[in-house]
Amino acid sequence: MRYDDVSSFIVMDIVRKAQKYQDSIHFEIGQPDLRPSPKVKKALIEAIDNDRFSYTESLGLLSLREKISNMYKEDYNVDIDSSRILLTPGTSGAFLVAYTLTLNNNENLGLSDPSYPCYKNFATMLDINPTFMNIDKSTNYELTIKHLEKVSIQALQISSPSNPTGNLYSKENLKELLLYCKEKNIAFISDELYHGLTYEKKAHTALEFSDDVFIINGFSKYYCMPGMRLGWIIVPKNLTREAEKIAQNIFISAPTLSQYAALEAFDKDYLNDIKNTFKKRRDYLYNELSLIFDIDAKPDGAFYLWANVSKFTDDSFKFAEELLENIHVATTPGVDFGSNKTEQYLRFAYTRDISHMSEGVERLKKYLYNRKARK
Amino acid sequence: MRYDDVSSFIVMDIVRKAQKYQDSIHFEIGQPDLRPSPKVKKALIEAIDNDRFSYTESLGLLSLREKISNMYKEDYNVDIDSSRILLTPGTSGAFLVAYTLTLNNNENLGLSDPSYPCYKNFATMLDINPTFMNIDKSTNYELTIKHLEKVSIQALQISSPSNPTGNLYSKENLKELLLYCKEKNIAFISDELYHGLTYEKKAHTALEFSDDVFIINGFSKYYCMPGMRLGWIIVPKNLTREAEKIAQNIFISAPTLSQYAALEAFDKDYLNDIKNTFKKRRDYLYNELSLIFDIDAKPDGAFYLWANVSKFTDDSFKFAEELLENIHVATTPGVDFGSNKTEQYLRFAYTRDISHMSEGVERLKKYLYNRKARK
Repeated sequence: MRYDDVSSFIVMDIVRKAQKYQDSIHFEIGQPDLRPSPKVKKALIEAIDNDRFSYTESLGLLSLREKISNMYKEDYNVDIDSSRILLTPGTSGAFLVAYTLTLNNNENLGLSDPSYPCYKNFATMLDINPTFMNIDKSTNYELTIKHLEKVSIQALQISSPSNPTGNLYSKENLKELLLYCKEKNIAFISDELYHGLTYEKKAHTALEFSDDVFIINGFSKYYCMPGMRLGWIIVPKNLTREAEKIAQNIFISAPTLSQYAALEAFDKDYLNDIKNTFKKRRDYLYNELSLIFDIDAKPDGAFYLWANVSKFTDDSFKFAEELLENIHVATTPGVDFGSNKTEQYLRFAYTRDISHMSEGVERLKKYLYNRKARK
Repeated sequence: MRYDDVSSFIVMDIVRKAQKYQDSIHFEIGQPDLRPSPKVKKALIEAIDNDRFSYTESLGLLSLREKISNMYKEDYNVDIDSSRILLTPGTSGAFLVAYTLTLNNNENLGLSDPSYPCYKNFATMLDINPTFMNIDKSTNYELTIKHLEKVSIQALQISSPSNPTGNLYSKENLKELLLYCKEKNIAFISDELYHGLTYEKKAHTALEFSDDVFIINGFSKYYCMPGMRLGWIIVPKNLTREAEKIAQNIFISAPTLSQYAALEAFDKDYLNDIKNTFKKRRDYLYNELSLIFDIDAKPDGAFYLWANVSKFTDDSFKFAEELLENIHVATTPGVDFGSNKTEQYLRFAYTRDISHMSEGVERLKKYLYNRKARK
């Protein structure tokens, strides 16, 4: 069956196991613990008072699409017509639109290994072949033209900053990849969900270099609204009507209250605090984990650290289970993200405050010191 | 491309056109104008106060799945383990799960013609072949074993009460179809979204006759929460893990606030009022439209009337446009729902109060009387 190759999203299973222990330390959770802006909550209450319980139009509220368009102008200085923006139920919905628009049955989707596991699983369900390209620290975990030259693909999916490695694509590389894909007629799909959460370098949207791209973003990470399930996709001008038709059929519309809430999500001061909080956590956790494991590349953004744990194990899945069972520290094994040496890696999310993380770090230090001594 | 055969969901385009006129009469809209129970609104405010902005587990809140399970016990006297219930972003999400679980590339999905257009469009996007069977008043717009004997299909999708015809499958026929499908190894998918909205006969869930079925339902119609985008699917016991894997990957989880809101949606007194309101509207509109058009079969449920308008036109799409432009009465042309004589039909939704509908009926009478006289 078409679902046979769909892998379990391992982290979701770990989340469940970790809930068994009252004193679990959570490095596994891929969503912010921080709350949306108080303005978002106010907008929600207002929407309820105003009985906003009907569907919106399938593209989503025009007023919200215009705010998103304004954000692209202000943050990236690009002009995006709101007709190219489609609101989706989470970015999950946006992937479905993107792959439906760009890939036929049996065509190939280029993905990095490691990468976010849902990419390949969406592809599998649509009878699209995931085509993996191994990335590592030698290119800062970025795909490059050299990777693309070795595969035959009809669409390329990148993410920047990336889950699980936290790396950001450089402006130059992003531009080169785009030109290459344009020349080879490869659809370019850029997952920019972690934009906003970059700590030194500025994130560039692929839209700065081309209009012929598919941009995926949403309110689940930087805006701290994961449960509201609201994302967006920006499509090339010539595909707006097709994108709308797909949305009409597969979503009807994105959740209405979430759309009204998101009208107030672009609260710059609040978002700046969110970013600074995650930066402090990144600095803390990077420094601490560097003393225990090998961190190939300091993450530029998102809220993940990709830690090489090979000095302790050659099976990070078992190692993650061991840590969870013995010291109630939950992490995500690398195998959730691919098969390129992923058995040597764990993903640590810094989605809890420093006091919570420091308890986890202490447990790790103590446990691994004794464990090492035991061998 | 896989999206080439996806049809526009015509009614959504009509909704947009009808908004151009301030005095439009809305017979086109497939969602209730009535509001969810005040208890639902209270639960929403409480959820916001409690900062329910995170993902839930992928299956959805256990407490809500248990409430749904209780509802099946109380309303149908069937025992459904909550582990078989998966909450989805609208029933739209449930179809994606159902078709992914039951049909491979190039296999055939049995559908009635007419039927809800998203069924076939979901299929098309997944490279599944929609296989249509014509239904009409001779079987009360129900599919029967005689229809199934003429096709080769791997899954059957029915809806009862049905959109666009409002017919309810009889208990006997439902049971026969189920037995036939079981024998022939055809997956049985029952869309029961309009359950609750039946006005004389009792609706039966396919679960009363078999556990080996896929049931789709949700909070958008009877519970009056369309914009909250929350549905559910019940899968056979042996597929619960597969269904969960698919949900983990394609949704993460259904909207969180909607799930908390739905905990209070089973408000029996309130729902009974909702049903009675729609029953009165059905009686009113059926009586009035019967004087103007030919109504094959008095609808048993949902909030639609399937009106034969062939005495005025042989192109109901043009006729719908004519009515909208000339008297600002919005209806949905039959072609949205298939090609089986659908050019002779319009769908009328009774999703506005009687005073609104009566203005539309008056306009129709006056306009069509003069129009007929003109010919």
